[in-house]
Amino acid sequence: MFTDVKEALTYVDEILTRAEVFGHAIHVLTYDQETICPPKAMEEQGEVIAELGNMSFKLTKDEKFVEAGEYLYAHREDLDSFDRSLAESLHRNYLKTKNITPEKNHEFSLVYNKAFVTWLEAKQKADFSVFAPSLSDVIRINREDVSLREEALPDLYDNLLGDYERGLTQKDLDETFGKCKERLLPLLERIKNSKKVIRTDFLSRPAAEEPQRQFARYLLELMRFDFERGAFTTSEHPFTDGLGRNDVRLTTHYHEDMFYANMYTVTHEGGHALFEMLQPRENYDHHINDLKSMSMHESVSRFYENRIARSESFIDLVYPKMKELFPTVLERVSAHELYEAMNTVTPSLIRTEADEFTYTFHIIIRYEIEKAMIRGDVRVEDLPALWNQKYEDYLGIRPANDREGILQDVHWTFGMGYFPTYALGNMYNAMYYNRMKTELDIDAAVRAGDFAKINDWMAQNVFAQADRLDAHTWIRGITGREFAPDDFLDYLEEKYSAIYEL
Amino acid sequence: MFTDVKEALTYVDEILTRAEVFGHAIHVLTYDQETICPPKAMEEQGEVIAELGNMSFKLTKDEKFVEAGEYLYAHREDLDSFDRSLAESLHRNYLKTKNITPEKNHEFSLVYNKAFVTWLEAKQKADFSVFAPSLSDVIRINREDVSLREEALPDLYDNLLGDYERGLTQKDLDETFGKCKERLLPLLERIKNSKKVIRTDFLSRPAAEEPQRQFARYLLELMRFDFERGAFTTSEHPFTDGLGRNDVRLTTHYHEDMFYANMYTVTHEGGHALFEMLQPRENYDHHINDLKSMSMHESVSRFYENRIARSESFIDLVYPKMKELFPTVLERVSAHELYEAMNTVTPSLIRTEADEFTYTFHIIIRYEIEKAMIRGDVRVEDLPALWNQKYEDYLGIRPANDREGILQDVHWTFGMGYFPTYALGNMYNAMYYNRMKTELDIDAAVRAGDFAKINDWMAQNVFAQADRLDAHTWIRGITGREFAPDDFLDYLEEKYSAIYEL
Repeated sequence: MFTDVKEALTYVDEILTRAEVFGHAIHVLTYDQETICPPKAMEEQGEVIAELGNMSFKLTKDEKFVEAGEYLYAHREDLDSFDRSLAESLHRNYLKTKNITPEKNHEFSLVYNKAFVTWLEAKQKADFSVFAPSLSDVIRINREDVSLREEALPDLYDNLLGDYERGLTQKDLDETFGKCKERLLPLLERIKNSKKVIRTDFLSRPAAEEPQRQFARYLLELMRFDFERGAFTTSEHPFTDGLGRNDVRLTTHYHEDMFYANMYTVTHEGGHALFEMLQPRENYDHHINDLKSMSMHESVSRFYENRIARSESFIDLVYPKMKELFPTVLERVSAHELYEAMNTVTPSLIRTEADEFTYTFHIIIRYEIEKAMIRGDVRVEDLPALWNQKYEDYLGIRPANDREGILQDVHWTFGMGYFPTYALGNMYNAMYYNRMKTELDIDAAVRAGDFAKINDWMAQNVFAQADRLDAHTWIRGITGREFAPDDFLDYLEEKYSAIYEL
Repeated sequence: MFTDVKEALTYVDEILTRAEVFGHAIHVLTYDQETICPPKAMEEQGEVIAELGNMSFKLTKDEKFVEAGEYLYAHREDLDSFDRSLAESLHRNYLKTKNITPEKNHEFSLVYNKAFVTWLEAKQKADFSVFAPSLSDVIRINREDVSLREEALPDLYDNLLGDYERGLTQKDLDETFGKCKERLLPLLERIKNSKKVIRTDFLSRPAAEEPQRQFARYLLELMRFDFERGAFTTSEHPFTDGLGRNDVRLTTHYHEDMFYANMYTVTHEGGHALFEMLQPRENYDHHINDLKSMSMHESVSRFYENRIARSESFIDLVYPKMKELFPTVLERVSAHELYEAMNTVTPSLIRTEADEFTYTFHIIIRYEIEKAMIRGDVRVEDLPALWNQKYEDYLGIRPANDREGILQDVHWTFGMGYFPTYALGNMYNAMYYNRMKTELDIDAAVRAGDFAKINDWMAQNVFAQADRLDAHTWIRGITGREFAPDDFLDYLEEKYSAIYEL
């Protein structure tokens, strides 16, 4: 038994440092799977990942490690805020995994990996039936996983939501999304009925890969991405991965007929990357560098993507570079026309390419489907029909096939509960944007390309505490106000009323 | 104690299967280091690789595993040829590592990784002094490693040579390289004095990256590289890595002012890749898939690079595609002019870009320097001067800096003894080319783009036994003759006499 916190901390540090060897390898192997690994090797590599994950899992199941963690949790009031966060995380993790054997953990990993592989195949074939059995398996093990937890919440889905944002429940989301629908649905109608004509004719003009690559690099340099401590490549499904203190990677994807997709992927993933790169060094020393909730993470990526990169100041800033790299795409297109085009509201099928306004509906649709799926209110084979119906109901459009419908997102290969964090991210950043505005002239900084100023504010206010606080405490700390979607809804109303002259 | 081979085989299989989880992860992590890993994360990732390597090492140090291996070795006559090769390999490995503790092994790994990182930095700065301390460390641990081996050969360098080609000694190499010098030096003089003028004016005409990428892909498709079981990317220093039965990866590098560098990198690395892809499936089941010597491997890569891709039939085959992709580079250049340009003899500084003829001198230089270095006949700080002097002596040219001199190759970051295998590879493939020629019309197959025919012959004759035989037995099996450099020297004399009209 441990008798002082120092001794317990030393032991925990030793084990977690060992576990991080596996963690690092798993990050690289997963990154490799998403970017390079050949199709026929995917499953084998997934098995290697599962094996290494289990070795790490076993380390944290060790009795002495659990004792140390519980000792620290019992004495958490004696710890500094970094170690306290670690202790709380160890305790939460202990409750979650206490009844999960390494064999069970390994079984779970294999199911997730298999789901990822079949999803890739299903998406390529645009055939949901290829993925359906794996999705049923994922739901089954989500249920089994939660049933094995100590002190689980009574409702299954609430537990899954909490995995991505601690404390988040359906009650909160129903209320938040209710407000969104109440204000956004009528606003969407008004936008649809607006007489304003926004030019979009140039959006599908072809842009070659090479200038797109150069533009992506230019954007990341502008954002102050540190290429010495990070990497930038491509993948079918763009993502960001923080592999370590000195290794943050993001990917993009080039579409020849959608030059702006790369632009918003890079600013979005670049935001995630900055959050990882500019978090306090101490987070790594205390093994708490990945405790930030996904809502916090998405708030930052969407801050850079939407609040910054869809602003008129930003468009004015990058317009000359774009004219240089894409002369034919922007032939006879003014900066203001580009700004408006980047902010057209057009109901569309693919979430990651959705405009800022309709995006929330993509999330609401997924949230409602997840709830139905987890409650068993819909059979797995009926999901594509439900998906298509919801797109019809909310956005008035209907996918032509499963690839542009229910198979578009990777998330269900690893479980339910992630999607709402995207929408919450928009709401958090609307709150801290309003706060930031009182302290610095954001538009002037953007026009000057002075991202150091913006990043510094983000680092001090948004990034610094993120891994040590739950989301509601964190946003209260930044803004002095309770979480609510109103700032976001006000912002949308104001911005789109101006653009659509409502 | 084991009492039957079946039981011992089962145990060995179980442990090696577990070790391969680490092996697979290490391959991916190393591939990642060479291709993507950001500069500041290199050392940390090296430490992860060393840790995983040590976990694997510990598995094979397990007493019961050693017992099983030694039992199999004692009963090797009762085994089939796959298991016999495995047993022999386990025994050799046991003798090599018996006295090496996991701590020592870990120390070695860290030295090699550190050497790799400092070499990268030194090369970038073109400053040998940055790498010198690491090189001294590598020599020191090479010496220590050999001193700890059971049944080591009396001479240090002979042991290191044997690590890449079993049984290879300086006595063999002195004789082989002696013959080379005897015939090639006077021939080089005659070439230098030839009146023949070969056009090379177009070789540095700029070729953009995109068509080079397309051409690389075209070449790999021609060679029947299986993209479902392999990947193809770029790296500063091209290489091939066989990660598993379904995962063989190669890289290339695009130089805008050297379009042909990509062409010969891809055919060379593509050769390595085919060897890995087309080896018997049983090699994997029996854990002997990487027992082939490096000379065998280089014989295959250089077969595809030189014997195939530098032949006039091959140039005729790919010329139309090249005209299409590089119209300005090949403007007013005939296929025959291209063939001659791809076969000019020009003493040059960089081994990997050397022509087929002078290549052997690049190896002889490195061989002589390694011998001197290992015997302690030259101080590490004096190596650049020795390097430059040898280039002057053999090729009449002198590097302007260490980057294009002694720092050009990665090999010394992991030890000495590798380079000779490149030259031996040329000699082996000259022998089996002559044999192949008696069984199929190679030129006709190449002209028809019928690589399936060539690959099949290679798979049946060259690849099939490689992992189960030492190189001399292997080449005897393929050709019915003893190893000698004469076929290679005859080939060079005949080919270059024709080109230079000697």
